Amino acid sequence: MSDREPKVAVIMGSDSDLSVVSKAIDILKEFEIYYEVRILSAHRTPEVTARYAKGAEEAGFEVIIAAAGKAAHLPGVIASYTTLPVIGIPIKSSELDGMDALLSIVQMPPGIPVATVGIGGAQNAGLLAIEILSIKYNHLKDELKLYRKKMQDNVLKKDEKFRTENL
Amino acid sequence: MSDREPKVAVIMGSDSDLSVVSKAIDILKEFEIYYEVRILSAHRTPEVTARYAKGAEEAGFEVIIAAAGKAAHLPGVIASYTTLPVIGIPIKSSELDGMDALLSIVQMPPGIPVATVGIGGAQNAGLLAIEILSIKYNHLKDELKLYRKKMQDNVLKKDEKFRTENL
Amino acid sequence: MSDREPKVAVIMGSDSDLSVVSKAIDILKEFEIYYEVRILSAHRTPEVTARYAKGAEEAGFEVIIAAAGKAAHLPGVIASYTTLPVIGIPIKSSELDGMDALLSIVQMPPGIPVATVGIGGAQNAGLLAIEILSIKYNHLKDELKLYRKKMQDNVLKKDEKFRTENL
Amino acid sequence: MSDREPKVAVIMGSDSDLSVVSKAIDILKEFEIYYEVRILSAHRTPEVTARYAKGAEEAGFEVIIAAAGKAAHLPGVIASYTTLPVIGIPIKSSELDGMDALLSIVQMPPGIPVATVGIGGAQNAGLLAIEILSIKYNHLKDELKLYRKKMQDNVLKKDEKFRTENL
Amino acid sequence: MSDREPKVAVIMGSDSDLSVVSKAIDILKEFEIYYEVRILSAHRTPEVTARYAKGAEEAGFEVIIAAAGKAAHLPGVIASYTTLPVIGIPIKSSELDGMDALLSIVQMPPGIPVATVGIGGAQNAGLLAIEILSIKYNHLKDELKLYRKKMQDNVLKKDEKFRTENL
Amino acid sequence: MSDREPKVAVIMGSDSDLSVVSKAIDILKEFEIYYEVRILSAHRTPEVTARYAKGAEEAGFEVIIAAAGKAAHLPGVIASYTTLPVIGIPIKSSELDGMDALLSIVQMPPGIPVATVGIGGAQNAGLLAIEILSIKYNHLKDELKLYRKKMQDNVLKKDEKFRTENL
Amino acid sequence: MSDREPKVAVIMGSDSDLSVVSKAIDILKEFEIYYEVRILSAHRTPEVTARYAKGAEEAGFEVIIAAAGKAAHLPGVIASYTTLPVIGIPIKSSELDGMDALLSIVQMPPGIPVATVGIGGAQNAGLLAIEILSIKYNHLKDELKLYRKKMQDNVLKKDEKFRTENL
Amino acid sequence: MSDREPKVAVIMGSDSDLSVVSKAIDILKEFEIYYEVRILSAHRTPEVTARYAKGAEEAGFEVIIAAAGKAAHLPGVIASYTTLPVIGIPIKSSELDGMDALLSIVQMPPGIPVATVGIGGAQNAGLLAIEILSIKYNHLKDELKLYRKKMQDNVLKKDEKFRTENL
Repeated sequence: MSDREPKVAVIMGSDSDLSVVSKAIDILKEFEIYYEVRILSAHRTPEVTARYAKGAEEAGFEVIIAAAGKAAHLPGVIASYTTLPVIGIPIKSSELDGMDALLSIVQMPPGIPVATVGIGGAQNAGLLAIEILSIKYNHLKDELKLYRKKMQDNVLKKDEKFRTENL
Repeated sequence: MSDREPKVAVIMGSDSDLSVVSKAIDILKEFEIYYEVRILSAHRTPEVTARYAKGAEEAGFEVIIAAAGKAAHLPGVIASYTTLPVIGIPIKSSELDGMDALLSIVQMPPGIPVATVGIGGAQNAGLLAIEILSIKYNHLKDELKLYRKKMQDNVLKKDEKFRTENL
Repeated sequence: MSDREPKVAVIMGSDSDLSVVSKAIDILKEFEIYYEVRILSAHRTPEVTARYAKGAEEAGFEVIIAAAGKAAHLPGVIASYTTLPVIGIPIKSSELDGMDALLSIVQMPPGIPVATVGIGGAQNAGLLAIEILSIKYNHLKDELKLYRKKMQDNVLKKDEKFRTENL
Repeated sequence: MSDREPKVAVIMGSDSDLSVVSKAIDILKEFEIYYEVRILSAHRTPEVTARYAKGAEEAGFEVIIAAAGKAAHLPGVIASYTTLPVIGIPIKSSELDGMDALLSIVQMPPGIPVATVGIGGAQNAGLLAIEILSIKYNHLKDELKLYRKKMQDNVLKKDEKFRTENL
Repeated sequence: MSDREPKVAVIMGSDSDLSVVSKAIDILKEFEIYYEVRILSAHRTPEVTARYAKGAEEAGFEVIIAAAGKAAHLPGVIASYTTLPVIGIPIKSSELDGMDALLSIVQMPPGIPVATVGIGGAQNAGLLAIEILSIKYNHLKDELKLYRKKMQDNVLKKDEKFRTENL
Repeated sequence: MSDREPKVAVIMGSDSDLSVVSKAIDILKEFEIYYEVRILSAHRTPEVTARYAKGAEEAGFEVIIAAAGKAAHLPGVIASYTTLPVIGIPIKSSELDGMDALLSIVQMPPGIPVATVGIGGAQNAGLLAIEILSIKYNHLKDELKLYRKKMQDNVLKKDEKFRTENL
Repeated sequence: MSDREPKVAVIMGSDSDLSVVSKAIDILKEFEIYYEVRILSAHRTPEVTARYAKGAEEAGFEVIIAAAGKAAHLPGVIASYTTLPVIGIPIKSSELDGMDALLSIVQMPPGIPVATVGIGGAQNAGLLAIEILSIKYNHLKDELKLYRKKMQDNVLKKDEKFRTENL
Repeated sequence: MSDREPKVAVIMGSDSDLSVVSKAIDILKEFEIYYEVRILSAHRTPEVTARYAKGAEEAGFEVIIAAAGKAAHLPGVIASYTTLPVIGIPIKSSELDGMDALLSIVQMPPGIPVATVGIGGAQNAGLLAIEILSIKYNHLKDELKLYRKKMQDNVLKKDEKFRTENL
């Protein structure tokens, strides 16, 4: 682990969240960002979680992504122990279509922000982390623009293909 | 502070919650329960809050009441540091009529329960604390029955008065 | 049935609730708590339910767990007939993802509390019952701590395994 | 109180509900229906409420109107003790704009119906009672039609006046 | 069709509602009530629907049950053309779990009540119709009590069986 | 009333809706569109409403704006009697912040559309009417562009003023 | 593409929306309206979308239908660049049953209306487009009436069939 | 304006949002961050807004804060034109307690993230901007820790004062 590289910590409250969170990890891989994935529970391992959050900055992390469902305290608890930007991903559970997680994550009290993305929005969490890192690491700016360009081309190609096929 | 008496800790995330929480305190006073009121924030004073929750049992507390609004992590964070019963009071804030606080408190993950009362339900939080204590302190059982009796008589008197006045 | 042991009554409004409620029963078994499971409906068998609730304390019960869906009056109706702590489990039905049951259980009027857990939160209902009993039965305190320790170790093991596999 | 006349029982959980419920009473007065207003709480006076509901039919009542806020069990509890038609009025409380009361009243389990009107819909509760009574008491049919006619004329007059004034 | 018998009209907005509405029809059959089932749309056949509603009383109907989903105007539109009691059944559609239909049916303006049952609550709509008819047709009172008795026995039997099997 | 001019009918369910609806009328005045305002209730004057809607096209109207609160059937009922474009304005009532009216208006069944604007969105209802008329009456296209231009200039002026004052 | 014919642009944010949007296209085909379907994203191809919206009027389009899910900015963004009537279709995504898309589309600020149809209401979007075009293209008025007539006959036939089969 | 300093653009859709947004500005002042406040509407000035967003990076801005109510497209529209981190503040309007703005801002499609804070959470938007800038501008890290320290001391002082006064 090189101290020079931007570093992102990806934390999920349960390994059952991995199928969602993996979309954030894919983004970090695609942008070749050093990252670490951890399973840490705000409620079941509160002290390990607190210690990890408190030490994250010194360990060289620059952004933290945290995903949780239901009462979803994980992103807020982590944010209370660090001044690194914390990105929260609400995970839909089987009961309330993610509205509980969304409100638990986004409605933080004044003083401790969590940068919340949409329900299940792990891809956007990854991209937001890159955007944040890009203000320091200039090469990421170009890569973000390239990424947007590819997305745009993808839409335009689908549009083109759709129109051609339906002539 | 006598170790023999039942003891309740009442914690609120902000002093602005006092107008609601005071209804819980009134119940504790009425039942002559030793209690302590603290202002502790899950997010602004996470370590003091964690330490308080971890030490609550040894300090002789037997039930904890915690009130919070918005993302409302306080009851859940406290519950993650103690196995004392934790009663959560969702506080209505100015934005989302308390639904955010209710979901953030009640939708706890498996393993760490919070006994949730209604939005702004501080009086019921106090009474639930007494009910819990009453399984150990038998004299509270009679006092609870008396309290119920008074409530019942109060309703019946209003009913009587209403009927008499409207004959 | 020994009068010395802590006792929990587990009541569900319909046998279709058993698949959820069984997670509460599993906890009671794991902590070796004497319990009784009953199918009693607030609306279809109101008098049997009322009689059961009124006699629960004298029958030696110390905590009541009640699960119900939709209008979900069962926990509140039971609470109106006893001063034992009543834990309410909202059950998700096929129509409104449990929000109806949650509000019907948690929004009790001042005077008659119900300790509400999350939608489908039967495991937490069981654990909350143990926490409540533990203030009287001291050995449960240690068992609760052990249970938490196991949960914590389980998360840490998954975290460890995850990190090892993804090196 | 004559046994020949149609009779309606109007029950509210708290005297604070009277300002809403009075609109139902006004309708009953206007149609010269014998009625009785009672303050009975599903939770604070469960046995008096149960006894009243069980005896309502024999006492000569033919329809019951019940109003309640928050968890709002009153109409459902009454319905569980009688086969008289029970009309439920959800009362808006200070926390959740009446959605809690609406769901607690309308989402009754199969077998025990409550005829639910809109939040605060006391006038409609009164009219629904008259409509129900009218299938037995034929003179009410004409009075209902007259009432509708007056409402209609009132709208048409406002429409006329509005158009005249804005020419 | 005998004019002497109580008569219920069951109206649904679309034949796709039949799987829900059939539970109301089953109740009417069980209580041997004369009924008529119609497919009438508030929006696609407004004039036929209006004519049917206006003529329902003269045709000998005494109660109308109307089921609809989504904007669910059917019960309210029918109620605007008749002073017969109208029972509304909100039908869950594929988009908004029935909350749209519930609000569209229950939130009627002052003057035109609709007796609303729970989402998909067709069985209760049938029973409510019977309860309403029973104030005129006395034999239905006894049958309703018998029906309740059977429901109660059914719960008690399940409770008994459950306890026996789990000894 | 000249047959040559575009004509808009503005209908509200109650004169209490006028304070909201007047913003639609102001737009119609500003664009010098011939309009007629009527107070017609879907439920209290169903036949007058139906007749008005059925005759609207022949009377020369080209767009209908209908505003209603709560169950808010008015726009849908009108739409069922005409193939003119119907614009629905959900009116917030005192109970459910307009969500009931929004769902009752927008969730129309397949076949009978209502062009729904935001809760209380009367100004947009007026502008949408103009946009619709503009496809036939070409001069309105230019006036719409002018209106947009003014709105834009207004924002830019505020932006300019704000920046100047805060230098 | 003839300039004489009415023309509708159908835009969707993603090709995954096609299964819903196709119901709008079917209507346009049935009424023999010239239309163009495009895949344009408010967020991924903002400039192409803006350019398309700005040029739509000059390109001869008279109505625009835009479908989008989740944050669903597409209809509003298009409306901000044109004064053609824009019809918005909220698409249900996998997380929040379309409520997010509905609110994002319908709650437009004063000045820029979007004619919103129900969640997934593509058929109604198509019909609303025809209704709007019909104020200019008179032959569409008759076709709309025929379409309504067919819908009505379809309901009446089902009603007839249902009654015959259940005699 | 020095190119060396971190720079934040604060954009609001209407000057009526200023009372909320000013709390973000206060934070930026307190941390002595260069900022610019603009009134730009996603819908009323789409082109100026697009141009501003596209040029923001070159103009030297590093983070953008955007506040909007109701359909609240502003943050998402800006995010579609830049890869700078965009922080969205949902503003509560008079109709739907900010839920519409929250969902419109947070539920962005994959590819274009908006870092959403709570409803009216302008203070947190300001702090999140500082946290993001702090990964590049190291002195902000210490200032953030100081800010947290002050918040913490403030809570502890209130706690102390409260306890002293209530002895």
